[in-house]
Amino acid sequence: MKFKAKSLDVAEGRLEVILNDRDAKDLGLHPNDRVNLFAKHRGAVAIVNTTKTFVGRGEIGVNREVKKACKLKDGYAISLTPAEKPKSIEHIKKKMKGIALSESEYDAIIKDVTANNLSEIELTAFVSALYINKMSMDETVFLTKKMAENGEMLNLKKKPIFDKHSIGGVPGNKITLLVVPIVAAAGLVIPKTSSRAITSACGTADIMEVLAPVTFNASEIEEIVNNTNGIIAWGGGVNLAPADDILIRVEYPLGIDPLAIASVMAKKYAVGANFVVIDLPMGEGTKVATMEEAKRFARDFVELGERIGISVECAITYGDKPIGRAVGPALEAQEALKALEGEGPSSLVEKSTEIAGIILEAGGVARKGRGKQEALEILNSGKALAKMREIIAAQGGDPKVTSENVQVGKYSEKVFSAGGGYVTHIVNTAIVQIARTAGSPKDEGAGILLHVSKGEKIEKDSVLFEILSDSEYKLEQALKLAEQIQPVILEGMLLKRIPEYTIFGH
Amino acid sequence: MKFKAKSLDVAEGRLEVILNDRDAKDLGLHPNDRVNLFAKHRGAVAIVNTTKTFVGRGEIGVNREVKKACKLKDGYAISLTPAEKPKSIEHIKKKMKGIALSESEYDAIIKDVTANNLSEIELTAFVSALYINKMSMDETVFLTKKMAENGEMLNLKKKPIFDKHSIGGVPGNKITLLVVPIVAAAGLVIPKTSSRAITSACGTADIMEVLAPVTFNASEIEEIVNNTNGIIAWGGGVNLAPADDILIRVEYPLGIDPLAIASVMAKKYAVGANFVVIDLPMGEGTKVATMEEAKRFARDFVELGERIGISVECAITYGDKPIGRAVGPALEAQEALKALEGEGPSSLVEKSTEIAGIILEAGGVARKGRGKQEALEILNSGKALAKMREIIAAQGGDPKVTSENVQVGKYSEKVFSAGGGYVTHIVNTAIVQIARTAGSPKDEGAGILLHVSKGEKIEKDSVLFEILSDSEYKLEQALKLAEQIQPVILEGMLLKRIPEYTIFGH
Repeated sequence: MKFKAKSLDVAEGRLEVILNDRDAKDLGLHPNDRVNLFAKHRGAVAIVNTTKTFVGRGEIGVNREVKKACKLKDGYAISLTPAEKPKSIEHIKKKMKGIALSESEYDAIIKDVTANNLSEIELTAFVSALYINKMSMDETVFLTKKMAENGEMLNLKKKPIFDKHSIGGVPGNKITLLVVPIVAAAGLVIPKTSSRAITSACGTADIMEVLAPVTFNASEIEEIVNNTNGIIAWGGGVNLAPADDILIRVEYPLGIDPLAIASVMAKKYAVGANFVVIDLPMGEGTKVATMEEAKRFARDFVELGERIGISVECAITYGDKPIGRAVGPALEAQEALKALEGEGPSSLVEKSTEIAGIILEAGGVARKGRGKQEALEILNSGKALAKMREIIAAQGGDPKVTSENVQVGKYSEKVFSAGGGYVTHIVNTAIVQIARTAGSPKDEGAGILLHVSKGEKIEKDSVLFEILSDSEYKLEQALKLAEQIQPVILEGMLLKRIPEYTIFGH
Repeated sequence: MKFKAKSLDVAEGRLEVILNDRDAKDLGLHPNDRVNLFAKHRGAVAIVNTTKTFVGRGEIGVNREVKKACKLKDGYAISLTPAEKPKSIEHIKKKMKGIALSESEYDAIIKDVTANNLSEIELTAFVSALYINKMSMDETVFLTKKMAENGEMLNLKKKPIFDKHSIGGVPGNKITLLVVPIVAAAGLVIPKTSSRAITSACGTADIMEVLAPVTFNASEIEEIVNNTNGIIAWGGGVNLAPADDILIRVEYPLGIDPLAIASVMAKKYAVGANFVVIDLPMGEGTKVATMEEAKRFARDFVELGERIGISVECAITYGDKPIGRAVGPALEAQEALKALEGEGPSSLVEKSTEIAGIILEAGGVARKGRGKQEALEILNSGKALAKMREIIAAQGGDPKVTSENVQVGKYSEKVFSAGGGYVTHIVNTAIVQIARTAGSPKDEGAGILLHVSKGEKIEKDSVLFEILSDSEYKLEQALKLAEQIQPVILEGMLLKRIPEYTIFGH
């Protein structure tokens, strides 16, 4: 039976065809079955979907991936036969039954994930099985290696290779923009790839992009790192452990992350890291709520690292409030530059030199116990700023940039306290929501600038924070939201969230 | 921000909108997020999907369900705001964590399943969690009741109500076409709803449809049963426990069925059954492989029945070979009629009167231990045939039908044995594949007629079976397949599956 190809732009990323459901019934095919496609030039295996009316009888809807795989044009004839399901589905079912999988079974699954051979249903069954039945450390090792090996691997000439990762959850955590230049200025190699924001106010890649392009392929990264010792690139530009990005699509809607540690370490394995420092922010709104949980995470990172040949050191950091005072791409880029220029807020400088110091000690650049001091000296000497400018230039940005000439949101409004007292809480989740409502991370200039610190005593009518935005409308929306959800809490006001007690007024 | 509606026929059954992915990014929306839609006339909550090119910026793809819910036309303006995920997703995550759910939590989940509020990812997470973490009997009770209550419930005047169910897996199992008229002829009420084939050669609804229409709504079923005591209707025509049909869509691709017992009993609960006999065919290719498994199934059915007020009796039956000799809609309808006319194959009559007898005893029509004999008498007296004709007439078929005038496939070919010996195996799975290749169940006349029985001694050149089809091409395909997969195995030939030892030739 021959079908006429009809272009459809659905199910991007996966080879999928859509049949009229009466044709499907005739052929004994069900949604999510596989078929072998035979076109004039080339064949492929695709997943079946059905429709009552979207394609007519005798037609076959083909998406971009199928057209590419089969070299098809609209109206071309295709014939099809039922195909076997990928073998990896049997492995997924085995894991659902609670049986540990072997290295070759993880390899088969990750190959099919990476090649987009699995449907959303099958991917969900896989992550659900990992979430519910957990993985042994052996399995985590297999999965981590296979995620890396079924993707691009950097091949840097300079060794050893250092890296850092923050598991996230704290707004304003722009320390990468200090750590990378400090470490690189000390002569160590640090090829940092970072993510963009998914649910946070902004990711490191969003911040760095204010200063320079961040999208580079593997050989470009190799070249920049070879020249400068460092880079701050967007991870999405290079295909490191790509299975992770596909699995996230089904993990995100469920709010589960069973591969957390494996995902992080797969990317580090793929860049060839020898030593990694993991920043584990602990506190409200972060991914680690208690010290016990932080220690368990740390143990797992260290053990997994050992098993795959990466030395790991974990730093459990204070995550109960934003790092520094700025949240939002341009505001954070500005604050990071200011810190490199010698005028950073203490919480940012503290944390950045702490993390950089761990790497300096591991790299033999500083004696044991002297890493932080050494990092601070590199920062204060201006060498870190010079290195940052070198990296910005290598990435194609303007090396003459200063904190003064970073463009922040042109619309802004300050929010004042209605009473006085001690600042008892700065609420991470509220900060993130407000910054996003103001336009962050998409609108570079949008975000929040905090004017008070946790623990500080303030008077009535003090500026609590300032919201900046590239759009008047979004600024207005963000201000409205800020009144509702109160990002800054003063002593004694915490339980009085009825409208007449609002602490806002401007 | 206003979007222009554009009709798309995707994700049938679910409220779904498709945004250009740059618009989605601007709004901070991800695939599988929920949005509140505000149109001119009405609003709704829908699931978000994104595309690079299928809808342009400023457009919003709306499927049929969204158009209906919001009373939309192409080009209408829609605005949207982020919406919360359904609360039931939290319950699903709780079950993923291994915590038993309460009655109200199952109610919330099943309500959202039935209303198509959950995405495929969420549905898959739910069935995966049930499959991996299992349900307690309490949970099975909650789920069963909620599946029934969130659907249509029959309200039959005549009581008590009897029913039967076969958990399937044996080809040729047309016993419902004998059991229903025998039971109804004895004066007992049996409102049987049956399924069509999904992966089997043909379902009871497919067979009955050869003789009469099978699609009826609840009040039509009530009327027919009120008049005749019986019916053989297609379950899909009436909305009994509809959540089951939605969950099957994600269970089928994974080949898992964690709700098996709950699904069956929910439908029985929805028809108001007081007594149900469950046929558990045990053997190769059925759903129950061992006696131990069969007994566990039986215990669960009986216990669940007790808990929801239904008396259950289970019959573990021989399922290692087809029931009767015919497989395929018209062939099975013909064979069932032949049996009602007094000339049925012994395996069919045996099993049908056994199952009917259990109901006759439960209904007080036969003394304990005399049910099967009584069923056989009703069959032999012609009362069952008369009742079947009455039911066929009530369903809108021709009551004068006989086994002679059922139309079977006009193309047929016999397959002969290449040698002699004992028939050691009739392979269920091979029979099913061949019948489906011949066109069953879609082509009514297609199927297989077995000419030998298991254990029978045959000579060289005996007819083993006959394949019938409505199409010459499909007959040819089915014959080819039969040569490859050998549905009938003779003694001594089992291990010799190399081509020169083929037992086929015609």
